[in-house]
Amino acid sequence: MKYRKIPEETIRRMPRYLRAFSTLQSENQGYISSQLLAERLHLNPPQIRKDLSYFGAFGTRGIGYPVQSTAEQIRSILKLNITQRAALVGAGRLGTAIASYHGFSLFGFDIAAVFDNDRQKIGRRIGGRTIEDVSRIGSVGSRGIQLAILAVPAEAAQTCADQLIKAGIKGILSLSPCYLETPKRIKVISIDLAMELGTLPYYL
Amino acid sequence: MKYRKIPEETIRRMPRYLRAFSTLQSENQGYISSQLLAERLHLNPPQIRKDLSYFGAFGTRGIGYPVQSTAEQIRSILKLNITQRAALVGAGRLGTAIASYHGFSLFGFDIAAVFDNDRQKIGRRIGGRTIEDVSRIGSVGSRGIQLAILAVPAEAAQTCADQLIKAGIKGILSLSPCYLETPKRIKVISIDLAMELGTLPYYL
Repeated sequence: MKYRKIPEETIRRMPRYLRAFSTLQSENQGYISSQLLAERLHLNPPQIRKDLSYFGAFGTRGIGYPVQSTAEQIRSILKLNITQRAALVGAGRLGTAIASYHGFSLFGFDIAAVFDNDRQKIGRRIGGRTIEDVSRIGSVGSRGIQLAILAVPAEAAQTCADQLIKAGIKGILSLSPCYLETPKRIKVISIDLAMELGTLPYYL
Repeated sequence: MKYRKIPEETIRRMPRYLRAFSTLQSENQGYISSQLLAERLHLNPPQIRKDLSYFGAFGTRGIGYPVQSTAEQIRSILKLNITQRAALVGAGRLGTAIASYHGFSLFGFDIAAVFDNDRQKIGRRIGGRTIEDVSRIGSVGSRGIQLAILAVPAEAAQTCADQLIKAGIKGILSLSPCYLETPKRIKVISIDLAMELGTLPYYL
C-alpha cells in the first residue's frame, strides 16, 4: 500500500521517527506523547502529529502513540521490516568508511556487495565483504540487491549508475559530487559534502 | 551586507550555482542564460532567476547573466572569496576520507587542523595535516578557524561540539548520527548517511 500524497519532507523525517520509536521499544515504553517525542526529536508536536497521520498512525489524546505498533507500522511502510540489501560501488577512502559504518544496521541494511575497478583492491575485504571487480556489477539483480551506494569519483558516477540501473537497482544514494541522469522510476538521493560545507561561511 | 530574507533552500542551492559559474569561467564564457544554466543544473529557469535575484544578480533578457561578475558576486556573498579554514574532528575512516577529499578546495576550503583522541593516531599525517590531540581543540579560535567538520561517534559529538563552540567555531558540518544541542548563533548542518539511506526502500 502506498499513500501517494505523502510529501517528500515527511518521508525524509520518517527514519528519525523510526529511530526514536526503536529506542523507545528498547526502553520498554508503552506509549509516547507527541509532546515528549517532539522534545526527543527537536521537532514541534503538530509537525509530528501531521507526519505520523500520513502513515495512518494516530495517537490517543492524553495517552499518546502506542510504541510497539507505531514502530512496526513505520518500519513496514518504509519497508525496513525486511533486510534491505545494498551494493556499494567504490572502495576508496569514503567507500571503506561506509562499508564499516555500523549505523546502517539499525535500519536493517546489509551492504551485501562491494565493487571497485582497482585491481589492487579487488579480492581484499572491507566491512566483512570481499571487494569484487566492478565488471560483476550486473549480478546485483540476481542477488536480490535493489539499492546501491555510489562512492566513486564524479567522472565514473554516471557510468556506474547506468550499469546499476541496467542490473535492476531501483534506488541510489550517491556521494559522488555530480548530477546523475536517471529514469524517473529510479529514486536518487545525492549528498555532496563540499556543497553542504559550501553554505556554512554565509552564516558566519 | 546580509539579505535577511533569503530562504534557506536558496542558500543551499547557491554552491551549485557557484560551481556552475566557476566551470563557465574556466570555459571562458561571457554570458549564460537562465535557460542554459537550468539545463546544466537540472533546475527550472524561473527558480534560478528567483534564487539569483535574492543575491542582486539580474540577467539581461536575450543575453543572460555575465559569468565573471556573477561568479564573483556569489563567491563574495557566500564568503567563499577568501580561504575558509576548517577544523576536522575525528580521524577515523570517515574523517580520513574527508581529510583527503579534493572537492572542498573548489570552494576554497582548507582543512587547517585535524583532531582525534586516539593516541595511536595523534602525530600521524592525513590529508597533509598532522593529527593533533583533541585536547588542543581550544586553539582553533586563535588559528583563525571558524568552521568545523565533526566526524566522531555519536556519543562524543556533543562534547566535541561544545568544545568547538567554546573555542570560537561558528559553523559545524556534522556527520555524526545524532542531534547537536547548540546556541542559535551557531549554524549546524547535519548529514546522517543511515537516515538518508533509510528513506530509499520506501520508493522501491
